[in-house]
Amino acid sequence: MRPHPFVPVIPAGGAGTRLWPLSRRSRPKFLLDLTGEGRSLLQGTVERLASLADHPPIVVTGTAHEAAVREQLDGSGLARVVAEPSPRNSMPAIALAAALVERERPGAIIGSFAADHLIEDHEAFARAVLLAREAAESGYLVTLGITPTHPATGFGYIEVAEADGGHAGPDLHAAGGRGALPPGAHPVARFVEKPDRERAEQFLATGRFLWNAGMFVVRASVLLDELAVQIPSLAAGVREIAAAHGTDQHQEVLERVWPRLTAIAIDHALAEPLAVDGKVAVVPASIGWDDVGDFSALARQLREHPGRAVPESAESAPSEGGGRGADGGDVRVLGSATVDAVSSRATVYGATDRHIALVGLDGISIVDTEDALLVLADEQAQDLSVLVARLDQRGLGRLR
Amino acid sequence: MRPHPFVPVIPAGGAGTRLWPLSRRSRPKFLLDLTGEGRSLLQGTVERLASLADHPPIVVTGTAHEAAVREQLDGSGLARVVAEPSPRNSMPAIALAAALVERERPGAIIGSFAADHLIEDHEAFARAVLLAREAAESGYLVTLGITPTHPATGFGYIEVAEADGGHAGPDLHAAGGRGALPPGAHPVARFVEKPDRERAEQFLATGRFLWNAGMFVVRASVLLDELAVQIPSLAAGVREIAAAHGTDQHQEVLERVWPRLTAIAIDHALAEPLAVDGKVAVVPASIGWDDVGDFSALARQLREHPGRAVPESAESAPSEGGGRGADGGDVRVLGSATVDAVSSRATVYGATDRHIALVGLDGISIVDTEDALLVLADEQAQDLSVLVARLDQRGLGRLR
Repeated sequence: MRPHPFVPVIPAGGAGTRLWPLSRRSRPKFLLDLTGEGRSLLQGTVERLASLADHPPIVVTGTAHEAAVREQLDGSGLARVVAEPSPRNSMPAIALAAALVERERPGAIIGSFAADHLIEDHEAFARAVLLAREAAESGYLVTLGITPTHPATGFGYIEVAEADGGHAGPDLHAAGGRGALPPGAHPVARFVEKPDRERAEQFLATGRFLWNAGMFVVRASVLLDELAVQIPSLAAGVREIAAAHGTDQHQEVLERVWPRLTAIAIDHALAEPLAVDGKVAVVPASIGWDDVGDFSALARQLREHPGRAVPESAESAPSEGGGRGADGGDVRVLGSATVDAVSSRATVYGATDRHIALVGLDGISIVDTEDALLVLADEQAQDLSVLVARLDQRGLGRLR
Repeated sequence: MRPHPFVPVIPAGGAGTRLWPLSRRSRPKFLLDLTGEGRSLLQGTVERLASLADHPPIVVTGTAHEAAVREQLDGSGLARVVAEPSPRNSMPAIALAAALVERERPGAIIGSFAADHLIEDHEAFARAVLLAREAAESGYLVTLGITPTHPATGFGYIEVAEADGGHAGPDLHAAGGRGALPPGAHPVARFVEKPDRERAEQFLATGRFLWNAGMFVVRASVLLDELAVQIPSLAAGVREIAAAHGTDQHQEVLERVWPRLTAIAIDHALAEPLAVDGKVAVVPASIGWDDVGDFSALARQLREHPGRAVPESAESAPSEGGGRGADGGDVRVLGSATVDAVSSRATVYGATDRHIALVGLDGISIVDTEDALLVLADEQAQDLSVLVARLDQRGLGRLR
């Protein structure tokens, strides 16, 4: 059987706070070049997916970022940009793309991937997507589960169902006529929210848990039909918008329907309830994935990848502190700042022409922008959101 | 016997590098308000000494800083400013002041004190100066020796001679007819350069070592007569300049003589050789002295004194790191910056209107200026000079 066409979907919305002041409301993470490779995370995502796609990826973004997204992508001609009038979480965005695909290319399979993650191993990713498409052809909602490398507490987990004979367990056969899963894909028992450290360690010990990276591959019509069961108004709404697409009524329909759509994440709207019914499959993937979720993750990325390193070892004064003398330090720079350092392990994001001097730092990230300066200990990177949240209270909302 | 008048001398020169970029060549430490009390170190020094003086303190500064010094002091009318045409270390500056005093007020006693140190206990300082004046009346070069509080390696030390009967040992009686020392003043055995840690600990164990804070009290004519023995041309030179002071020839004499004066520190020119001859006395002083020599010292000062504290404890997120959770942090701010912090012990010098955010820092100093940013671990504060020294190599000499 010839496979159905594959159309990637890239929801590009949401302004996180954990990379502030590098990312701002007006310049979210997906628009930033966080690796120093000369392209934004969005551009990298589009390029990676376009090479696997039968039709250009659909980028769904907010009107606030539409112009910036078009500016980054229009030159490439690789993607199609769809603007959502207001942010309503991931389910309406993905469902809208699914409805457009369902209408334009019946039977097509979509794959939804975040706009602001990094994937290092493109070949392994391509293989995982191919396998996920195969499972999706059989009617499953298929997710790519990242093989965990440590007991992370910042991600949700996917529990693989215990095998019971063949690849498809009994629950699956009960799941409305879906076919057997291809080798390498497994039924999902459940999705689990971010655990604490102890539970995360238990998860890893079982060998049956994978990280939920929010990657879903599914036939567009399956997604919408299942959504019609879970949240009928949402499925009907996006199908109505898609039906009006390209017509004179498009704008009117969009403005009438969109604000009424349930704002919900795809995990809660579909993945979790369908997993209970055995309708979700997972393809374990070791693809060098990183969500670059905070400055700790970004520092790790820049240590392993490009950026610009400050060659300080040769010039360094002998270190008097313990532990850092051996390597003389390691400073990575993203941006155009001039940086000089003594005995420092640090990451610098320099967006000004200020000279930056570092002495004796160990695991520190520095973000130097025109209106805000952040100095952060990487190991407490997750606490940054506390500070960003209270900018408004302090009358500094303009900095967000 | 009525005591001779006391004239303080304040050499205000030298651009250190250990408080860069807060201090610059064009804005040395003594011109800065480092305590947040609304006055510079120089202003504080002048005020402190003026209250003990019979005539206004003489501030000797370089032509490069003369205007700034006059601007800070002229309003007060408390000091007299003398400009040296070029920096030639401390001995010529102090000797010139001594020569002016010798000429204008025969028999007067001068006291030379750095322009950029802090002294907390003004009463104890006043008592020590009074005792030093008394010893100086007997013809000694008298220094105030700071009672050490820890085995510092950043200061020179003064070794007190072992008592041998009375207050004045046999060497002293041999020292050209000087009188007995008053109780509380002691003969100096020798001056010692900055020791390493081990020697510093040995010094403290003996109980006979004091920190050399570069404070000297001496009759002006004694200083010049002794200098005439050690470096005749230097004594003759400053006496020639003083003789021309207030006459038409002043500028001509100054420009001819000054460049030829030996550039040397008072320690090497006078204190060390005179100690060998038993002509130096020391008054031990516990006066809350601090030379605020680097950012580590400054951070300690700001923890103990004014500045502005960021009240973060109440708002802080629960700390996940060890050790810092209990107090929630302690952030001190000097300058006008808005600062917000989570679980941080840090010191911020904010000279811009940038918002500064800190997360999880422990013992970090941050200096934010328009053209340079420093982030430094207090425990390695002494390494800063390495970075400043190579600004020139990097074509950034304008930042010094």
